[in-house]
Amino acid sequence: MRHPARFSLTAFFTAVLLAVSPVFAGDWGTGALMVIIERESGSVVVVDSAQDHKILGRVGGLGVLHHAAISFSRDARYAYVVSRDGLLSKIDLVNLTLSAQVKVGESSIGLAVSQDNKTIAVSNYKPGSIVIVANDTFKIVKTIDADKSKTVGMVDAPDNLFVVGLMDANSVWVIDANDPAFPVTHKYENIGEKPYDGLLTPDGRYYISGLFNSPWVTMIDLWNMEEPTRVPLPKLEIEGGEKPVLKIPHLEGWVVAGDEIYAPVIGGAGLAIVDKKSLKVTRTIKLRGFPVFSMTAPDSRTIWVNYVMGDFHDTVDVIDTRSKEIVKTLKPGPGIYHMQFTPKGEAVYISSNGSDKVFVYDTRTYGLIKEIPAKKPSGVFCSDRAHKFGL
Amino acid sequence: MRHPARFSLTAFFTAVLLAVSPVFAGDWGTGALMVIIERESGSVVVVDSAQDHKILGRVGGLGVLHHAAISFSRDARYAYVVSRDGLLSKIDLVNLTLSAQVKVGESSIGLAVSQDNKTIAVSNYKPGSIVIVANDTFKIVKTIDADKSKTVGMVDAPDNLFVVGLMDANSVWVIDANDPAFPVTHKYENIGEKPYDGLLTPDGRYYISGLFNSPWVTMIDLWNMEEPTRVPLPKLEIEGGEKPVLKIPHLEGWVVAGDEIYAPVIGGAGLAIVDKKSLKVTRTIKLRGFPVFSMTAPDSRTIWVNYVMGDFHDTVDVIDTRSKEIVKTLKPGPGIYHMQFTPKGEAVYISSNGSDKVFVYDTRTYGLIKEIPAKKPSGVFCSDRAHKFGL
Repeated sequence: MRHPARFSLTAFFTAVLLAVSPVFAGDWGTGALMVIIERESGSVVVVDSAQDHKILGRVGGLGVLHHAAISFSRDARYAYVVSRDGLLSKIDLVNLTLSAQVKVGESSIGLAVSQDNKTIAVSNYKPGSIVIVANDTFKIVKTIDADKSKTVGMVDAPDNLFVVGLMDANSVWVIDANDPAFPVTHKYENIGEKPYDGLLTPDGRYYISGLFNSPWVTMIDLWNMEEPTRVPLPKLEIEGGEKPVLKIPHLEGWVVAGDEIYAPVIGGAGLAIVDKKSLKVTRTIKLRGFPVFSMTAPDSRTIWVNYVMGDFHDTVDVIDTRSKEIVKTLKPGPGIYHMQFTPKGEAVYISSNGSDKVFVYDTRTYGLIKEIPAKKPSGVFCSDRAHKFGL
Repeated sequence: MRHPARFSLTAFFTAVLLAVSPVFAGDWGTGALMVIIERESGSVVVVDSAQDHKILGRVGGLGVLHHAAISFSRDARYAYVVSRDGLLSKIDLVNLTLSAQVKVGESSIGLAVSQDNKTIAVSNYKPGSIVIVANDTFKIVKTIDADKSKTVGMVDAPDNLFVVGLMDANSVWVIDANDPAFPVTHKYENIGEKPYDGLLTPDGRYYISGLFNSPWVTMIDLWNMEEPTRVPLPKLEIEGGEKPVLKIPHLEGWVVAGDEIYAPVIGGAGLAIVDKKSLKVTRTIKLRGFPVFSMTAPDSRTIWVNYVMGDFHDTVDVIDTRSKEIVKTLKPGPGIYHMQFTPKGEAVYISSNGSDKVFVYDTRTYGLIKEIPAKKPSGVFCSDRAHKFGL
C-alpha cells in the first residue's frame, strides 16, 4: 500500500499546485519596474525600483537585441520587445516568463502598442512593411506592404492610431487600428529625405520625423492631420572637427520641458532649444561631444545627456532647464548606453555597457544608490511607459 | 496509523501552501486598475480596465468614505485611503486585502504619498494637524501641529516635499520629507481667506490654493519658493439665480490642457479659461449648472464636466478644447459623482451614485462599453495616479 499512497500524495501535491494557480505570480506591483536589456545575450533583467531596486529575475530567448526598445501593455503586465532579427516577444512581468513569441520579419526596428491595448505594430526594415499582431492570440493579423521601403519611428497615438515613417519613400503613414482592416488613412509624401526616426510629443499631438539627409525635422499635427510643418535645425560643428554622418541622435533623445523642446543637433556637439509655439530654434547649448540621448527628469528641471564617441562615452552631463547650463557631471563607468528615470524621477538608472552594470543615482543628491549587475546592458525601460503615448 | 497519516497530510498541505507563497497573488498587472469607492459601505471595488473592465474583488473595513480620495504607492501595488473618521488604510492591489491600517485623527480630509514612496502624509481637520506615516511599518512617525487650523489640499511635490493648506490660518506650508524630522521649511501667510483645497500642476511646479472667501486663487512656484502670485477669478452668475455658497468646485476639477488652465468658476455656472503664462482669465465657458469636476482626457482634446445640483445631477457634458463648445452630452444615470479616465484615455469611468453603477464609455465613439455594479459609488481612481505628482 505504501507506493500507491506516495503516488496519490504526489498527485495531491500537483492538484494543490494547480488549484491555487497562479502559484508563482509575482508578489509585486508592476507600476515601477525597470526592464534592462542585456544586449549580447538576448535577455532582459527585471528590477523593481520600488523594492530597493531589487532584481526580480531574468527572461531570455528574445533574439538579437541591438538597438532594441521596449513597449508595455497599458496595465504594465507585459513588456514587448522586437529583436533586430524579427522576433516579437511578449514578456510576462508578473510570472517572469516568455509568454508568447512570433516571427514578424527578417529585420525589425521598432514597435508600439495601440491605445486600446489590443494590437502591437512592428516596423520592419526587411521586408519593408508594417506588421500588426493581436495582443491576445499573438498572431499576425495584418501585414501592410510599405512599397519596398524600410519603416521606422513607429508610435501609437490617440484615437487608436499608429504613425510610422517610410525611410526610403520619404513618407509618413497613419494607420487606423479601430478598423480590423487596419487601413492607411493618411499618407504624407515628400516630407524630406530619409526619415530615420520619429517621436510623438508627450501630449500625443505632434509626430516629429527626424531626417537623415535634410536639415529640418517634420511635424505633423495629428489634431488636424494637415500638411506637415518643417522646422529647420541648426548645424553645430565641433571645433576643428569633421561633421560625422551618424544615424544619431535618436529622436527619443528629444525632450519637451515646459514650453521648450530640447533636440540634439544632427552631427553636432550641442542641444538645440526649440520654442514649442513658434517652432523656431531660440538657442543652442554647447556640449562636450555628440549627444546620444537627452532625457528630461519627470519634474522638467534637469536634462540628462550621454555621449556616443571618443573620450566621453563614460560621461553623463546634467543640464539645468532654467540656467541652460551643465550643473553636474557624472562618470559612472565606460560605455554609457542609456538612462531611464523612475516614474516620479527620484532616481535614474544609467546603463554602463562596459562595466556590466546599471548604476542607480539619486537625482536630488547625485549620490549612488545601487549598482545592479547586468550583462552588457544597453536600454533601460520603466513600466510607466505603459501610460505614455508614443512609447 | 491512519490518523497520524492524515494529520501529516494536512501539515504537508499547509507546508506546500506556505512554500509557494504568495499563493493568492493576483494574476494581473497593477498599472491600469480602477479603484471605485463605495461611499456608504466603507469599501472599494477593484476593476481591471485592461481585462475587459472585470471586477477583481472588493476590500472593506475602510471607515467613513465621504469625500474620500485615493493615492497609490509609486509601483501601483498599494492604494491608500483616509476616511473622514481618521482611519488611514493600505489596500494591497495584488492580494486584494487590507494590508495595514492606522488611526491618524478624528476627522481627516486628504493624503499624499511622498515622491520617494517612503511616507504618507494626511491632512487632518481635527485635530488640526499633519500626520506622517511610514509606508513600511505603517506607524505614525511625525505629527505636525497646525496651530489649531484645519489642514487641506495635501499634495506630494518634486524634491520629496509635501505641500498643504491651513484653512483657518490662511497659510500654505511646505514640508521636507527628506529629513526624518519632517521640518516645515516654508510658511506662506496671508495667502487669502480660508484655503479650502489645493492642487499641483501636472509638471509638479505650481501649487494652487482655492480660497473660500477671496475672489482669487494663489499660486506658489515651487521652483523658486517665492511669494505667491494672486490670480483673480471671475464670478459668473446663473441667470436669475442666487449665488450659492458652496465649498465646491473641488480644485481637482481644475485641468491643464496645453497652454490653458480650465477652472470651474466659484459659485457660478461656468468654466474659466486661464492662460498659463499670463495667469489671466481669457474667456469663460457657460455651463448648464455648477460644475463639480472637470477632467481633461489624457489627449487634452476634450474636457468632461459633471454637476452637483438641480436638474443636472445625471448629466455629463463634453467640451472640445479647440472650439470651447459642448460637443456631447451624456446622461448615464442619477447622481453622477465622479469620472476617471483609463491611462491612455480610450475609456472613461463615470460613477452614478443613484443607480449603484459605474458606467464605462468609449471616449471616441461615446458608446457604452460596460455597466459595473457598485454600491453607492462615489470616487473612481485609476492606479496610473501612482506616477503623477500631486495625486
